[in-house]
Amino acid sequence: MSTSTPLSPTARSTLGRHAERARLDRAELYAVLDEGLICHLGVMRSGAPVVLPTCYGRLNDTLYLHGSAGASSLRAGADTPVCVTVTLLDGLVYARSVMHHSANYRSAVVHGTPRRLVDEASKLRGLKAIVEHTTPGSWEHARQPNRKELAATSVLVLDLAEASVKVRTGPPVDDDADMSVGTAWAGVLPVQTTFGSPAPCPLLAANVPIPPHIAKRLG
Amino acid sequence: MSTSTPLSPTARSTLGRHAERARLDRAELYAVLDEGLICHLGVMRSGAPVVLPTCYGRLNDTLYLHGSAGASSLRAGADTPVCVTVTLLDGLVYARSVMHHSANYRSAVVHGTPRRLVDEASKLRGLKAIVEHTTPGSWEHARQPNRKELAATSVLVLDLAEASVKVRTGPPVDDDADMSVGTAWAGVLPVQTTFGSPAPCPLLAANVPIPPHIAKRLG
Repeated sequence: MSTSTPLSPTARSTLGRHAERARLDRAELYAVLDEGLICHLGVMRSGAPVVLPTCYGRLNDTLYLHGSAGASSLRAGADTPVCVTVTLLDGLVYARSVMHHSANYRSAVVHGTPRRLVDEASKLRGLKAIVEHTTPGSWEHARQPNRKELAATSVLVLDLAEASVKVRTGPPVDDDADMSVGTAWAGVLPVQTTFGSPAPCPLLAANVPIPPHIAKRLG
Repeated sequence: MSTSTPLSPTARSTLGRHAERARLDRAELYAVLDEGLICHLGVMRSGAPVVLPTCYGRLNDTLYLHGSAGASSLRAGADTPVCVTVTLLDGLVYARSVMHHSANYRSAVVHGTPRRLVDEASKLRGLKAIVEHTTPGSWEHARQPNRKELAATSVLVLDLAEASVKVRTGPPVDDDADMSVGTAWAGVLPVQTTFGSPAPCPLLAANVPIPPHIAKRLG
């Protein structure tokens, strides 16, 4: 699939409520996934859903997840259906009535059944994607995984074949009857995610500078 | 249950990996839930998990969720098991080896089977909790729900009986062998969530000031 391949809704990736918020452009899916720092992974465990935050990475139309080879969330996730959701909260929407309060956000919801990678080269590629997504530049800067670490790590891949993107932007949408009454403030309070000043490890030598790949995240 | 009632782990709320990160103090559960702006709600649909971002509120040991009476996520959620997860990402942890890269975070994971509220007074109480959690001060400032809106809205309650809290803080923890080698920077890049300048609705009269309940969120 290329960026120009639209997202083709399936039954479960078709939005029920607020279908007008759906985006079918694959580039928008990539944009949400690439901007997010963590995802929420939903798996089944003993017949009930379990939702856990975790890191991820993306290469083209593949999403990578990882964890300890013994982690129960990944044991549950491999070869059984999962849902991976990334949400970017952009603002809180204050309306003239509380029922029209809302949030501006971009969310990506990916459905699928992950496969567990076996060969070392594929696992390394997946781990690199996760590291470079979460902490870009760290793969070359820090020590890369050795064979023992690789063996102790599960890497799962999930195809981005079945996914939906939902976006809300803009001001509140109030009822006509509320437009003229009000002294209530209405608008959007932006929510921003930023990086603070890096805090060096207390055990780090004093002469190790903050490297460019971290400095440039500080904007 | 009071704040002093510890969280009593059940099979599914007992942490598998990194059990040392578990917090059993109910006040820590409340703190994570109260600081979060959105949760990720996991429900089962056609045998697969679906994870969707949504607003929520808390009153004592009750979590409230809401949605359109017709929303499929809530239809699926009432009277069937759900998982509600709130994650506060506090920092990205850069280690001397990529496999010890991590994240500092506080997460709350709540398991249970929600009930759908029926009577108007209870639904109003739940909606107020959600509004006051997400946009504190809006309940009194904006128009409150009328009976028609109330009838069109589902409000679910979930007891905070079965929940876990997981917290990671502090610098990276590297292997001894990596401590002396490195020229790699190690430490924590803080992740901060802040509010930007409120953007008034274009249809708002120019003389409506930003009210104190919003101004005070700007810190």
